Amino acid sequence: MKHGPSTGSLLIIGGNEDREGEMTILQRFLALSGGLDSPIAVITTASEIPDEVWDQYRTAFSHLGARKLSHIHFNSREDAADPEQLRGLTDAGGIFFTGGAQDRLLAFTGNTRAHDEIRRAYLERGACIAGTSAGASAMSRFMLQYGRAELEPEKGSIALGEGLGFIERIVVDQHFSERQRLPRLLSVVAERPELFGLGIDEDTALLVQPGRSLEVLGHGGLTVTDGSQAITNISDLEPHDCLRMVNVCLHVLPSGTIFSQQESDGSFDAPLPLQIFLSTLTQ
Amino acid sequence: MKHGPSTGSLLIIGGNEDREGEMTILQRFLALSGGLDSPIAVITTASEIPDEVWDQYRTAFSHLGARKLSHIHFNSREDAADPEQLRGLTDAGGIFFTGGAQDRLLAFTGNTRAHDEIRRAYLERGACIAGTSAGASAMSRFMLQYGRAELEPEKGSIALGEGLGFIERIVVDQHFSERQRLPRLLSVVAERPELFGLGIDEDTALLVQPGRSLEVLGHGGLTVTDGSQAITNISDLEPHDCLRMVNVCLHVLPSGTIFSQQESDGSFDAPLPLQIFLSTLTQ
Repeated sequence: MKHGPSTGSLLIIGGNEDREGEMTILQRFLALSGGLDSPIAVITTASEIPDEVWDQYRTAFSHLGARKLSHIHFNSREDAADPEQLRGLTDAGGIFFTGGAQDRLLAFTGNTRAHDEIRRAYLERGACIAGTSAGASAMSRFMLQYGRAELEPEKGSIALGEGLGFIERIVVDQHFSERQRLPRLLSVVAERPELFGLGIDEDTALLVQPGRSLEVLGHGGLTVTDGSQAITNISDLEPHDCLRMVNVCLHVLPSGTIFSQQESDGSFDAPLPLQIFLSTLTQ
Repeated sequence: MKHGPSTGSLLIIGGNEDREGEMTILQRFLALSGGLDSPIAVITTASEIPDEVWDQYRTAFSHLGARKLSHIHFNSREDAADPEQLRGLTDAGGIFFTGGAQDRLLAFTGNTRAHDEIRRAYLERGACIAGTSAGASAMSRFMLQYGRAELEPEKGSIALGEGLGFIERIVVDQHFSERQRLPRLLSVVAERPELFGLGIDEDTALLVQPGRSLEVLGHGGLTVTDGSQAITNISDLEPHDCLRMVNVCLHVLPSGTIFSQQESDGSFDAPLPLQIFLSTLTQ
């Protein structure tokens, strides 16, 4: 995905973000989306209870002062091609994907007119694209379709599918510390050592602004697994066997972490072992 | 601690080992202790319910066929200096530290005659020294005295004390995956990057046989955190602040992992990034 000067921002939220108290993350989303008068679209396609979910976000965003909210829900790929149903997207300054099931979201929006419209909003109109929980998983090109909750990393415990593709070379897992998901994020990089695993805690978000900065905000942290230098025995194993993994590189970046990018050469003011990871995020 | 040809073995158990079914770990302990006719001492000093705990192990070991079992419980440092109470130790082929509280165990046995006797059993008589849960924590020179259960690694969330010192440069945490203890094991290596953090799962043990081999057995895995190359912001933080940690090296070694040591040069048949870790275990 080619980023230019009008690329917007991605807000990848680990689920269960505060929707009643200070709402740090939702507030930031509105600011990144152009402020309270900017059109905001909430896409509930991932959810099987779209009206309830929309109601929660409508209440939260209204409480924060947002004035132009629209609810978008595709129940089929036809819906996602219907110009009538895309109206809320064409001028949106912010597009928010709620939680639910990432498979459902992809099945109904992947490679549709709606998808094109959202891509255009992000790349050409500077919009903020946010996703929480399933919506966060779906942001990247490689998406965790399912992952068993095991205590140890196991061969065959995860499956990757195609996501919405707003960001390359990462796989996002959410509710990360709360649901003890390190083993499956290790399995991801054992199976696909060229990808980075990103574990985002609840009420925590990674904000990616290509060419500008990366930031962790909210209440928890971001955990990164890098298996590019790891030595594993995955090719010797049968499905369900526990993996041996040696030399996995791990980063823990708490809320408040900000890395900004130099205009001159695109490098980051960050410790050297993070440079490669950070630059892949904004490629 | 200097190891010679008559050094025995250390069996460091992550707690909650099977005491009713196949009892893989307890069976191995008996074998390493010289078999069913070898004297076995069970030390319940860590526990506040020593009779119940002794009863469990007596039943389990008897069931496995062990014939010479003795129960040792020190309620004071005087107990641990009393020759009458040390009788079970002087000819023991196996010494087993039960769970409870590691502080209590150290308070009553650290640097006592009992401690000398156990050290002698390990170094000069080839005995197997086993510890489970609190007993596992106490095995090393640096012992996790307490560690708060946080979702993120935090400054000041752990405290190290002096353990029984049978092994150097490691800090053991138990019930590791079950109680989600990675954050505190990361805190350990952030505070003390010269030490390795060892997280041992329940019903899982690390067997150390200096000069011979290392093995992970049981049902879970061993997780190693190595912060020697990590970059953290710990010196800029206040207590309770979340740590930023970049470039932590992580190893996950499942049950069944065995590394044997070459007689010629003491090196291990293991991937290179593990060599330093493995050789520190048998120093």
